Amino acid sequence: MWQQPTSLFTDHYELTMLQASLHSGAAHRPSVFEAFARRLPEGRRYGVVAGTGRILEGLKEFRFGEEQLAFLAETRVVDETTLDYLRNFSFSGNIYGYAEGEIYFPNSPVLIVESTFAEACVLETFILSALNHDSAIASAASRMIASSGTRPCIEMGSRRTHEESAVAAARAAIIAGFDSTSNLEAGHRYGLKTVGTAAHSFTLLHDSERAAFKAQVASMGAGTTLLVDTYDVEAGVRAAVEVAGPELGAVRLDSGDLVEQARWVRDLLDDLGNENTRILVTSDLDEYAIAALQSAPVDAYGVGTSLVTGSGHPTASMVYKLVARHNDAGEFVSVAKAAKNKASVGGRKFALRRLNERGRATEELIGVGELPAADANDRVLLEQFVVNGEIQAGWTGAEGVRRAAKRHKDSILEMPGSSRRLQRGEPVIPTVYID
Amino acid sequence: MWQQPTSLFTDHYELTMLQASLHSGAAHRPSVFEAFARRLPEGRRYGVVAGTGRILEGLKEFRFGEEQLAFLAETRVVDETTLDYLRNFSFSGNIYGYAEGEIYFPNSPVLIVESTFAEACVLETFILSALNHDSAIASAASRMIASSGTRPCIEMGSRRTHEESAVAAARAAIIAGFDSTSNLEAGHRYGLKTVGTAAHSFTLLHDSERAAFKAQVASMGAGTTLLVDTYDVEAGVRAAVEVAGPELGAVRLDSGDLVEQARWVRDLLDDLGNENTRILVTSDLDEYAIAALQSAPVDAYGVGTSLVTGSGHPTASMVYKLVARHNDAGEFVSVAKAAKNKASVGGRKFALRRLNERGRATEELIGVGELPAADANDRVLLEQFVVNGEIQAGWTGAEGVRRAAKRHKDSILEMPGSSRRLQRGEPVIPTVYID
Repeated sequence: MWQQPTSLFTDHYELTMLQASLHSGAAHRPSVFEAFARRLPEGRRYGVVAGTGRILEGLKEFRFGEEQLAFLAETRVVDETTLDYLRNFSFSGNIYGYAEGEIYFPNSPVLIVESTFAEACVLETFILSALNHDSAIASAASRMIASSGTRPCIEMGSRRTHEESAVAAARAAIIAGFDSTSNLEAGHRYGLKTVGTAAHSFTLLHDSERAAFKAQVASMGAGTTLLVDTYDVEAGVRAAVEVAGPELGAVRLDSGDLVEQARWVRDLLDDLGNENTRILVTSDLDEYAIAALQSAPVDAYGVGTSLVTGSGHPTASMVYKLVARHNDAGEFVSVAKAAKNKASVGGRKFALRRLNERGRATEELIGVGELPAADANDRVLLEQFVVNGEIQAGWTGAEGVRRAAKRHKDSILEMPGSSRRLQRGEPVIPTVYID
Repeated sequence: MWQQPTSLFTDHYELTMLQASLHSGAAHRPSVFEAFARRLPEGRRYGVVAGTGRILEGLKEFRFGEEQLAFLAETRVVDETTLDYLRNFSFSGNIYGYAEGEIYFPNSPVLIVESTFAEACVLETFILSALNHDSAIASAASRMIASSGTRPCIEMGSRRTHEESAVAAARAAIIAGFDSTSNLEAGHRYGLKTVGTAAHSFTLLHDSERAAFKAQVASMGAGTTLLVDTYDVEAGVRAAVEVAGPELGAVRLDSGDLVEQARWVRDLLDDLGNENTRILVTSDLDEYAIAALQSAPVDAYGVGTSLVTGSGHPTASMVYKLVARHNDAGEFVSVAKAAKNKASVGGRKFALRRLNERGRATEELIGVGELPAADANDRVLLEQFVVNGEIQAGWTGAEGVRRAAKRHKDSILEMPGSSRRLQRGEPVIPTVYID
């Protein structure tokens, strides 16, 4: 994935903390860091973990080569001792967490890093960047999937976000249940299905809409999707059917009142004998617009801006906190900041999803210390992704995405039906701490 | 910058349009595409162009190598003819636009691509990704700078956004007037000043706050910034001064009522003889919080989440439209989509900023065709970045960022004072079309 080191996707202070802790000796204290969200975005019922596979992919390339070291030396970000430490840096600890695609709630221990302070500290920024971005997109995407029922959703938002965010967003959307993406780089990296046919510019390029449709059908076959709203929608639909015939794959509507338009376009297509031609709608859709379109004869949704910007919540607001570390006696002690509104529960956690006899989730159980004897219906939520620095197989690349999409689907099936409600509300199950 | 081709940061449909237009022959029609925003985000008075330098950097690497071609062939995104075209792809046209850092308004022609349809079409997604993301961040950052007056702002949002967006966001923030960033990769790529000292985890790692402060000062000198709110702020400030002495560089406050806290911390520092110790505040600041803190004795602002998510507007919503193309007679004709609410003005544009006799902007003048004889006070807004495929010097890398920051500063000085108002309102100058 990355062809260059990921180590400088890091805040300056991670390395100054490293330097100061190497100086004090505390850098080598065994430590536990935890990534979690104190709350869900306002009104959201659940969140979706995403980014974990990308973190593991980036971890492979998290090293300080000559170029990175030269930059740090020239700019005097850190001293010689620290440069020596970074020259040999290789993560040797353990990483646990919720499987990618899993649902999370406030204070769910989404990712846990067990290593020396030094090793966990330098990973902080990169871990949070991936989790916060990708989880925000997956969480929004999951709501869109809940709204769209059995109709496929297509991710089309690349142009509305940074070009690399676009790739990660496409990946997160697929994890949350999207059918496909317009993003070719995402298709390339993660083996995702990509789709797309034509924009308004293609119609405008030709001397008439009919000439454009003919060119498209001649090159791509009658099964293509024709964009029919460049000039007049009714004339566009008629021209599309005349040019492509009864085998026309789909028409795309990208403007106007889509609910009303889809209805009469469906009637028109049927009248013209194109009962099998599908209707794809795009145009600034979000989960609410999708819900409103469910009563219209629409076959698929193309979603862009709202998806890649998290539908109002572009970041998941996860934090990464030191929760336990060794003292001088070599024992783990829980630590927590005492400032107002930011109290953290210290210590290495376990996490279970309690399910009732019908397999529906009722509580998120979190505690510090050893895993309690699990109830038959409890599902253990923490997986181990890295063992003594070794990244475990199955979580990255195309395989990781497929596995995460499966995990998300299964986790959604466990949720109470109220998880699909779009209205603002409380988390759909409570987070409960047990001793 | 990019060590791999940027060509797959592209929507699938750009390449299917290419294929169909190669088939019809229209691919080679000389064309003009324009990137612009139909409107500013709701209530915003102006936008800031950013991303242009990154587009030019990416354009250098916009080629289809064996890996990209193999992907497109295997997945049958395009046919053999199109693969042959892409194998030899190299942009050979002209690109004009507003200088990076320039202010823009609704319908300002922010970027203009003049080339064949084929060449301009395949660049669409990448161009919009960079413009939409970076301009959203720069536009938010500029408002924060307007609020902060002469106090420096530090960009610290990397962890809240995708790791590559974080680099672009840091760059955009500096263009808009930020003093520095926490992002090391941004520092490395663009020669930006990076800053940072320590987080709460550093304090929690040590056996006491005092031990942490001692470790930090021993390693980094008394001029460092100590984070004083891990436990009790007053005790923290006292410990910081005792450990670092009168040379303590700054204290950082990251929680609580910052206005009230800054006041008594200032008094306490002064009472302790640390008149020169500065106060840095962080903690979910945005332009409104900064404005509220202007009356408090704060020396610098650290801004994170709100900046990198565009302070409520994470994308600039720019579009990229075909506005003119050759007809069969080899003449340029203006083209525009006719659908409701999306009418575009066709044709190759010019753009001027009309200034009054005091050098203040009064109108954004846009027209189609030749530049009119400019009024003495008009400023021509379009620069040429690419001449027959040759990227012009001075717009990319560290030099491009410095130049963009200068451009932004100068453009802001031209704006009416009402541009600094945070309240929602209309664009600060109107966009006027002239014939």
